[in-house]
Amino acid sequence: MVRLASQKSVSARNEGVAECAVLVEKMLKEIGATTKVLKLDGAAPLVFGEVRSKKPGRTLLFYNHYDVQPEEPLELWKSPPFKPEIRDGVIYGRGVSDDKGELVARLKVVEAFLKADGDIPCNVKFCFEGEEEVGSGHLGDYISKYPELFEADAVIWEYGTVDSAGTPTVTLGVKGMIYVELTLKSLSQDAHSSLAAILPSAPWRMVRLLNILKDEDERILVPGWYDGVTNLAEDELSVLNAMPFDGDGYRKNYAAEKFTGGMEDDLAKKALVQRPTGNIAGIWAGYTGPGSKTVLPKEIHVKMDFRLVPEQDPEELLKKLRKYLDDNGFADVEIKRESMEPAARTSYRDPFAQAAIVAAEKTYGRKPVVELGSPGTGPLYLFTRRYGMPSVDIGVSATDGGIHAPNENLKLENLRKGMIWIAETVEIFATQAPA
Amino acid sequence: MVRLASQKSVSARNEGVAECAVLVEKMLKEIGATTKVLKLDGAAPLVFGEVRSKKPGRTLLFYNHYDVQPEEPLELWKSPPFKPEIRDGVIYGRGVSDDKGELVARLKVVEAFLKADGDIPCNVKFCFEGEEEVGSGHLGDYISKYPELFEADAVIWEYGTVDSAGTPTVTLGVKGMIYVELTLKSLSQDAHSSLAAILPSAPWRMVRLLNILKDEDERILVPGWYDGVTNLAEDELSVLNAMPFDGDGYRKNYAAEKFTGGMEDDLAKKALVQRPTGNIAGIWAGYTGPGSKTVLPKEIHVKMDFRLVPEQDPEELLKKLRKYLDDNGFADVEIKRESMEPAARTSYRDPFAQAAIVAAEKTYGRKPVVELGSPGTGPLYLFTRRYGMPSVDIGVSATDGGIHAPNENLKLENLRKGMIWIAETVEIFATQAPA
Repeated sequence: MVRLASQKSVSARNEGVAECAVLVEKMLKEIGATTKVLKLDGAAPLVFGEVRSKKPGRTLLFYNHYDVQPEEPLELWKSPPFKPEIRDGVIYGRGVSDDKGELVARLKVVEAFLKADGDIPCNVKFCFEGEEEVGSGHLGDYISKYPELFEADAVIWEYGTVDSAGTPTVTLGVKGMIYVELTLKSLSQDAHSSLAAILPSAPWRMVRLLNILKDEDERILVPGWYDGVTNLAEDELSVLNAMPFDGDGYRKNYAAEKFTGGMEDDLAKKALVQRPTGNIAGIWAGYTGPGSKTVLPKEIHVKMDFRLVPEQDPEELLKKLRKYLDDNGFADVEIKRESMEPAARTSYRDPFAQAAIVAAEKTYGRKPVVELGSPGTGPLYLFTRRYGMPSVDIGVSATDGGIHAPNENLKLENLRKGMIWIAETVEIFATQAPA
Repeated sequence: MVRLASQKSVSARNEGVAECAVLVEKMLKEIGATTKVLKLDGAAPLVFGEVRSKKPGRTLLFYNHYDVQPEEPLELWKSPPFKPEIRDGVIYGRGVSDDKGELVARLKVVEAFLKADGDIPCNVKFCFEGEEEVGSGHLGDYISKYPELFEADAVIWEYGTVDSAGTPTVTLGVKGMIYVELTLKSLSQDAHSSLAAILPSAPWRMVRLLNILKDEDERILVPGWYDGVTNLAEDELSVLNAMPFDGDGYRKNYAAEKFTGGMEDDLAKKALVQRPTGNIAGIWAGYTGPGSKTVLPKEIHVKMDFRLVPEQDPEELLKKLRKYLDDNGFADVEIKRESMEPAARTSYRDPFAQAAIVAAEKTYGRKPVVELGSPGTGPLYLFTRRYGMPSVDIGVSATDGGIHAPNENLKLENLRKGMIWIAETVEIFATQAPA
């Protein structure tokens, strides 16, 4: 753990990434795994590992990443980010929670099984990528090139969290996303704004476009956008209602008087799981400096991310968006696709989800929080969609672990308990019949 | 002329401005004018001059500026911008057209009268400012501080143009303008865009605001925005129709398939004179760099210029805009006033306008183009509103004089004829009864 966190691996600057891959492979070998370091052109190495059980049976895949966020701002760190230091039972360093602590915990669980029993309850595979913090741009390529390597019956995703009261969270998926840049050009060059009396304006046309894209109730107006989207079932709503939600915390943190549309907390909680969004992440045109410049801008750009729920197919939606713009006089507007990922969600009813939930109860002596789906997005679908495997997020981090921030940390007690949680989950999983 | 154009006076960089003011005062003294150099803190000097007629009578004010645009890009000049050079009857140098050639022409006309007759037909005042190219920010302050200095019966504005076929243009005014920056803040900090499911979005609220600000027919929806705005009268329309208008030229220059709303050329010509505009000059929010960033922006900014016709009062309109936003749920949106100028227009029927028109016919042997109003904006109202004086734009420049561009130039033949035009106008004006 200290060894791994001491090895810088900042993917955003490609600092130490290759060296870290070498170290990760070494650590896999040390626990007795067979390894393969995959390397595509222009990509960080993907370190693959495998430990086979002596008994025939199911296979569990662990997904983690060995790259970390940049360490800046340096001056806010109490100890050097790449010299992990333990103070009062807490280890501090970049990546100790996200994701090196999680990665090491899983290696240690497998090692412990092997040491204690000379075997493990099921086959285990490790997929350790080096580009998660920069968008996992090549993970799909690796999987497409080596599809058989990643075959498994279930995947334990990147991390799990334990809150400050010691309650663990099982997260069961992520939303999908379409990220596009819209470009609307009306003139071949900027014009003096006195000509606004006669020349068409790209910004005003974009206002019209955006105005027909979403209504005031936050509903996306592209025909068919919500096709197949379901409401949460009764039992899912019960799970949702049992999840704590700090509405006041959100509102205070962002000084937002109310949630969008005046939603109450229970609706907001549901929206985070099951509401497709259409967000304007960036917009720009014309003169954006101090003071005034009288210009009629030739073009305008809008960056948008649409978050998707599992019932939505991003390829289909992008076609519908294109058609909607075409049908409404915006055929000339360019839609540049920046990224596209379907959602991935495992039902809480799935035996693998239940395994993680039961294991949490056993380990922590209390019911875990079950998060039906995270409002965020990730490449989880690459595993769940292709292989049809269920996934859970469980692990050793804490909600207050300073992820992506200075003084990132991991409580050793959380590490210890999280490892037990993973081990318990592995044991239950190994005994379950295939779905 | 060569002397004045050799003196750098780039107001944008405050290079040579004070030195140029000294030279301009010297040139005024040389023709026998009494002078005053006015100087406000932080402002370029305003050089005032006066020549009184021996006969009691009317007073004509000449407005010009002695500052010039920056000379860059230097490499495109065939001769140094501040070493005027005459080639084939054309003088090249920064400011030879805009506005030093015009300034000198007027001095020379007055000097010619004095040399020929020992007198001038009417009293003459000169207002030469040094900040026109940076927005005339202190002209109003100078006039407020020395109001009696600028009293006159009419003003000849900065410049007039002659087209390549030798037809002069008389321009009779400018539109007004309100320039504002709207700021809408919804959150105290940017949020991860996954929270777009629950947190309010500043960009989307701005889309709603802009959407109720102007309709698809380019009509500004603020109640009372068009109060008092009239259509052009029959005879004004005749004048407008007589004005040549190169619609294809505009469309080609900006690669615009059509004018806004599919306007034909005759409507476009009218819109340039009499249509109030609401232009988005700049808009920005969130992430505007390459690739994608999943952010829910905390705020959005929009720069807008509203061009106004003479019937509109900018102070009143700004109040109406504020009330409209307040009444529609946008009371929290900040409206920062960047600048505000009412329109200024002299009727073509005004005797002074007629003087300039008749003088043009006499000088050029053809009817001048009469432009009822320029679509642009300037500080003309400071004279026309305060003193109730009519104004005309007449002078010596050419439409192809490279104003604000490299190789700015002035045809010596245009200079000679333009001086005659001005002299003829002065003579007619001197004999007219006060309005």
